[in-house]
Amino acid sequence: MFKKITIIGLGLIGGSLALAIRKKELAEEIIGVSRRKSTIDRAVENKIVDSATLNLKDGVKGSDLVIIAAPVLRIPDIAKRLAPFLRKDAILTDAGSTKRYIVKNIEKTGFKGVNFVGSHPIAGSEKSGIKSADKDLFKGACCILTKTKNTNPKIIARLKKFWGGLEMRVKVMSPEAHDRLLSNISHLPHAASVSLANSAGKDGLKLAAGGFKDTTRIASGEPELWKDIFFTNRDNLIKDIEVLKKELVKIEAALKNNDRAGLLRLLKKAKAVRDSF
Amino acid sequence: MFKKITIIGLGLIGGSLALAIRKKELAEEIIGVSRRKSTIDRAVENKIVDSATLNLKDGVKGSDLVIIAAPVLRIPDIAKRLAPFLRKDAILTDAGSTKRYIVKNIEKTGFKGVNFVGSHPIAGSEKSGIKSADKDLFKGACCILTKTKNTNPKIIARLKKFWGGLEMRVKVMSPEAHDRLLSNISHLPHAASVSLANSAGKDGLKLAAGGFKDTTRIASGEPELWKDIFFTNRDNLIKDIEVLKKELVKIEAALKNNDRAGLLRLLKKAKAVRDSF
Repeated sequence: MFKKITIIGLGLIGGSLALAIRKKELAEEIIGVSRRKSTIDRAVENKIVDSATLNLKDGVKGSDLVIIAAPVLRIPDIAKRLAPFLRKDAILTDAGSTKRYIVKNIEKTGFKGVNFVGSHPIAGSEKSGIKSADKDLFKGACCILTKTKNTNPKIIARLKKFWGGLEMRVKVMSPEAHDRLLSNISHLPHAASVSLANSAGKDGLKLAAGGFKDTTRIASGEPELWKDIFFTNRDNLIKDIEVLKKELVKIEAALKNNDRAGLLRLLKKAKAVRDSF
Repeated sequence: MFKKITIIGLGLIGGSLALAIRKKELAEEIIGVSRRKSTIDRAVENKIVDSATLNLKDGVKGSDLVIIAAPVLRIPDIAKRLAPFLRKDAILTDAGSTKRYIVKNIEKTGFKGVNFVGSHPIAGSEKSGIKSADKDLFKGACCILTKTKNTNPKIIARLKKFWGGLEMRVKVMSPEAHDRLLSNISHLPHAASVSLANSAGKDGLKLAAGGFKDTTRIASGEPELWKDIFFTNRDNLIKDIEVLKKELVKIEAALKNNDRAGLLRLLKKAKAVRDSF
């Protein structure tokens, strides 16, 4: 599908991407770029990539697909730095968890001739780093491609094939729609998980079982990464936290008013939503 | 350890208990009692119990340990009905998820000579019914025994051995302390999970990944069971919902005030809590 794919950033996402691309044979050659010597050594030793470099220019040279799998706030800057070294027909995309900030900043920098479309493969884990890389991380999950007035439909078509080739369900929408939806199904659950962990008393922790374990799993995610995800989607997340607080108040009100039928309705509705998933 | 153990209620908990008791050889004979003919047939056919009956009196006759594994609100009534048929030296316990309501009502009915101590094996699943019974459900989890001024320490000692024999970590505390702790680590996460599911928009659901899946898993639990758990612990749960709302407001405030350091502190604290678990 591609001759040479370069992945910038070899963490959980970048590492898993390399493994998945190799497994599905979507590239003849996979190049990794990382800021850390230990990471590129590990990536090459474990045959996660064919070769790896600390140098952005060397890394993207001659590639026909470049994927930036770095923390959200760093992506536009990396894009700007590597743009001059891209092949003319190269496709540039990313794997960031929010899209307005990234797409706006990359389009704004105005480097012409760069074929950029934002991607968000919606998969992850509370784990991080190349040590947790998993060739099946993306399988069956959804990948969103962003479309703006500047988007070239041919690039969308090629990226659809690429992510589809990793067994992802691909959807196309605006960066705005993406961020609104992701706030609801990813950033809000993360905020709730963090708040639950921070509500837990020490004595209780020793007794906690599966329910606590599962609801707080994602609170183990990398704080630095999530801080930037939250801040690049703050308007949506603030609205969604309000929605969640209202849902909690409904439960509280049912308890206070001894409204057993009302509580049962809330529990049944939630079960129906979750069972439909 | 016991000659004859009777389990009243053959759902997920009762069925799993029977399987675990058999696996650990803690009884020579295991009797099941259920209200449903289909359930007792299934329990006997699948050798989950040695025999089963629809009749409470027949079921408890001659048993030296009787465990009521029924929904919270039904437990005191079942205890009252079976009390006249218990052997003098029989131990009576339950597996209910809240303890003040159960212990108070069983002690209040005042039948003398019944050796009751409340138990709560803290294990479960969003699944229900004997079809989901699992011999390893309790392994490694915590079991709380309740102690009041009426409690006979010899019964506590025997039940410690029993639950310990199922590889559970056993703790003894008052029904009040139990309900306070469980609100924090089980009922509040359940309320949050239900509220998250009820906050989810339809469009987002199609995209949702592991974070949403895990944080809302327990919202699939049986609404009727959870309604009664919530209502028999409503004072504690109302307080804990207030705590959770305050934690959510802290995240909201950090976002609104552009307080990146503050948000990072909240994320780091939650990670530390969860990683310590």
